[in-house]
Amino acid sequence: MKIAVLGTGHVGQTLAGRLAELGHEVTVGTRDVTATLARADPDAMGNPPYAAWATAHPAVSLAPFAEAAAAADLIVNATSGDVSLAALEAAGRDNLAGKVLLDVSNPLDFSAGFPPTLFVKDTDSLAEQIQAAFPDARVVKSLNTLTAALMVEPRQLADGDHSIFMSGNDAAAKETVAALLASFGHTDVIDLGDISTARGPEMYLPIWLRLMNALSVPIFNIKVVR
Amino acid sequence: MKIAVLGTGHVGQTLAGRLAELGHEVTVGTRDVTATLARADPDAMGNPPYAAWATAHPAVSLAPFAEAAAAADLIVNATSGDVSLAALEAAGRDNLAGKVLLDVSNPLDFSAGFPPTLFVKDTDSLAEQIQAAFPDARVVKSLNTLTAALMVEPRQLADGDHSIFMSGNDAAAKETVAALLASFGHTDVIDLGDISTARGPEMYLPIWLRLMNALSVPIFNIKVVR
Repeated sequence: MKIAVLGTGHVGQTLAGRLAELGHEVTVGTRDVTATLARADPDAMGNPPYAAWATAHPAVSLAPFAEAAAAADLIVNATSGDVSLAALEAAGRDNLAGKVLLDVSNPLDFSAGFPPTLFVKDTDSLAEQIQAAFPDARVVKSLNTLTAALMVEPRQLADGDHSIFMSGNDAAAKETVAALLASFGHTDVIDLGDISTARGPEMYLPIWLRLMNALSVPIFNIKVVR
Repeated sequence: MKIAVLGTGHVGQTLAGRLAELGHEVTVGTRDVTATLARADPDAMGNPPYAAWATAHPAVSLAPFAEAAAAADLIVNATSGDVSLAALEAAGRDNLAGKVLLDVSNPLDFSAGFPPTLFVKDTDSLAEQIQAAFPDARVVKSLNTLTAALMVEPRQLADGDHSIFMSGNDAAAKETVAALLASFGHTDVIDLGDISTARGPEMYLPIWLRLMNALSVPIFNIKVVR
């Protein structure tokens, strides 16, 4: 599949690398290609800048948001939640129309430090805002409840015996995403329902953040035992 | 231990019954004993009214909030979140002072129907409001992430192989609660940290509600796989 991964940070890199490894034709989308390649410093978590990552992943292309989205069959929103709507606007609504848009972002607000709060919650969600802003995109929320490494390689933890969620209005789009998640190694994909159910997994972030602090590692996930 | 369970609904009944079964001296606290015993209708979930339950549980006493709290070593807040602060005020701050106060409530707002939203979240929590209102009580948040039956009998699901959370400022109070949880059958009690970490498990409710809807049963829990 031709896949555009919007976002050049650690989450975007991790998703792009794994998708390329699985044989997809992957283009990472960015606001400004030159600026992205010029960044020389690691991110806040110590991950290498995009250019260093790209050298190690020559199969993955880099293009402006709109160019990446235009060529893609499926688009992944891996931008920071606070810039997701602007990034998707830059990708162009015509380039999103009719396409599966896998939204893995979280509406985190770091303005008051750590742990972050959520800038949308409870009566709305970032996934719903994206679906409302781009009604012709087929938005599916998933993977936002996991650290990047586990999004794409769930079997590195307990041989994948844990759960992942999915919300969206379009049944066929959810089938496409479920197949992609299965190809990553996810074995328990729970369809929560329409896009409004994304309020659940987005509001899960506060307990995820406290668990990361209590466990001192980001490599954990929840299994829904039933 | 002498335990007061504040709240006569299904959660209070379930906790009181199990605590009595474990040998504790249990008094259920209510605003108005006569009114509680006069209720003849099942609750919204079809659970029998208090009087019918009490007949089947003769070891459990019923008393006004203040009387129940005054006699207790440990107090459980099992009232609806929207009346918890008022119920604890009625219990009397002197009767709460120095005591472990296990808060199992959730700040659910049903005013716009189902699923409910949260009337406090993200930058505050009901547990923190309770601790702030009753600074001499030793508040521990726990059990709010489970349906009542699983709070007290976790082994009925996957032989108890799932997780529960605990938040509070007082280490000794958390030890007392952890021992109580272990006596119920909980095997994985995760201490998230101080009372502010209760924002995590309280904000977990929205995904719990969507999971209950997706799974069509309330008998499920999460296991933190790490």
